[in-house]
Amino acid sequence: MVDRSDVESAAALVEGRVRETPVIAVDGADLGVPGQLSLKLELHQHTGSFKPRGAFNRMLQGALPAAGVIAASGGNHGLAVAYAARSLGVPAEVFVPVTASPVKVQRLAGLGAQVRQVGQHYAEALAASTQRAAESGALVVHAYDQPEVVAGQGTVGRELERQVDGIDTVLVAVGGGGLVSGIASWFDGSVRVVAVEPEQIPTLHSALKAGRPVDIEVGGIATDSLGARRIGEIAYDTARRTGVESVLVRDEDLVRARRLLWSELRVAAELGGAAALAALVGGAYVPQPGERVAVVICGGNTDPSDLGPAAPH
Amino acid sequence: MVDRSDVESAAALVEGRVRETPVIAVDGADLGVPGQLSLKLELHQHTGSFKPRGAFNRMLQGALPAAGVIAASGGNHGLAVAYAARSLGVPAEVFVPVTASPVKVQRLAGLGAQVRQVGQHYAEALAASTQRAAESGALVVHAYDQPEVVAGQGTVGRELERQVDGIDTVLVAVGGGGLVSGIASWFDGSVRVVAVEPEQIPTLHSALKAGRPVDIEVGGIATDSLGARRIGEIAYDTARRTGVESVLVRDEDLVRARRLLWSELRVAAELGGAAALAALVGGAYVPQPGERVAVVICGGNTDPSDLGPAAPH
Repeated sequence: MVDRSDVESAAALVEGRVRETPVIAVDGADLGVPGQLSLKLELHQHTGSFKPRGAFNRMLQGALPAAGVIAASGGNHGLAVAYAARSLGVPAEVFVPVTASPVKVQRLAGLGAQVRQVGQHYAEALAASTQRAAESGALVVHAYDQPEVVAGQGTVGRELERQVDGIDTVLVAVGGGGLVSGIASWFDGSVRVVAVEPEQIPTLHSALKAGRPVDIEVGGIATDSLGARRIGEIAYDTARRTGVESVLVRDEDLVRARRLLWSELRVAAELGGAAALAALVGGAYVPQPGERVAVVICGGNTDPSDLGPAAPH
Repeated sequence: MVDRSDVESAAALVEGRVRETPVIAVDGADLGVPGQLSLKLELHQHTGSFKPRGAFNRMLQGALPAAGVIAASGGNHGLAVAYAARSLGVPAEVFVPVTASPVKVQRLAGLGAQVRQVGQHYAEALAASTQRAAESGALVVHAYDQPEVVAGQGTVGRELERQVDGIDTVLVAVGGGGLVSGIASWFDGSVRVVAVEPEQIPTLHSALKAGRPVDIEVGGIATDSLGARRIGEIAYDTARRTGVESVLVRDEDLVRARRLLWSELRVAAELGGAAALAALVGGAYVPQPGERVAVVICGGNTDPSDLGPAAPH
């Protein structure tokens, strides 16, 4: 279990290593949704997502082994681990499936990571990374299901609480659940935390229904950043304990939310990064009048070409 | 002359109409420059630039004529006037040269403005707009050389002072000088204000050298947002009175600064919006050790396609 004090400790450890990301107050009407919103612009974090928070907190618990760190991820987590390792001066091995795009492999290598391409799917890369860690003695940094990782991501919630007065509700996207459970651990039931998942990647939703984490079929357009097959144990327990609410959004709402962030705010988010806003845009979550809603825009690792020339409204 | 109290009044008038844009603290090392920086992310403003601040302040001084407002600009100012007019429920006529791109004309029309295409150059469109205003009785909203416009842009400085403790220096891009003079009017010599211009559009630089505003040849890659032919009278007087410093940057530094904002921060700025940072990136302005530098990222009306996939470092 991760609690508020774990997040507090994480904040002290990662200070100066991660950016305090800004919040912008936006009239919901600008985006065609009700109420006043506070958008937490976590896409401006190092490597373009919230992931370095958890990676640094995991890696700063004590002296790191000479073999450094290991992670399995071709996405935002891999980038964060590579970045944190370089910053702390230790080696990083990052396992990705052979199907990972050359662009991603290149980015990881550009951050100094040793990239290992193993297996057709993430699960195989993960298994290989665990085995390799057992041999090398490197520290495994999991993408979401480690207490230190969850506590690190929770610093997003701690910052939000300090930046915005009187939040009623926080909307957060869910992949494996590290971010949402970190934030829920921080607020510990004092604000409503709404977990937002694409309809075709309902890891938390399915788990809450089944009464335990279950494997799901992963599909749709946001698998890149939110495509976990099963919610983390920590995330599931935290969601149950703190009363996290779960809503699902359609892929078309992800697309609309991403486009609105660009056209109305010049925020270039990735689809997963726009998921929390998609819950408002598509009506999956409808705030009460006067409800103060914070929305975490959690990633910007996107090719912005399809956003086209800015078209202000 | 515009003074601090004018900016204070402007802030009261435009409150709720413009966004308080966020500031992000960034280690200069992330961008390859010295020191600790505070970036004011004004590109997240309505219509993607600071311009609505001045437009609203000009338009909220009293009752607006039934004929509404008139401006000459195919760029950020035109968008801001169109947006403010729509928001206040009055008509807007925006004059642009016949050479203005269809995309710009479409955007202005999309905001509800009547677009008038007159002449080959901005000067002709401006002259036509003035003549038309004399006939119609509409209120002219100048792109920079009106006290209310300057005071409105000065609210960027007022926000910065409240958001960041102990600023020593503010770097600001210059076109006609509305933004820099507004900010300089607010700080009134209490912090160093550095005006940043492309080498090929040195309106303020040339004026300070000549001892008066002079016409210049306009060239290079940032004419779109910074391409005024002559610094405004108010801007020139304010720069002299408050001791604004003037530096020039190369076009290649604009390109580098814009790319760095994307790769390191997922901020998609236009070239003019990256100009202030370009002064640090290219070494035109070198802060002292410990100097606390704020940088205004003033616009994001850019086609982001050429930024390509995000490549974090």
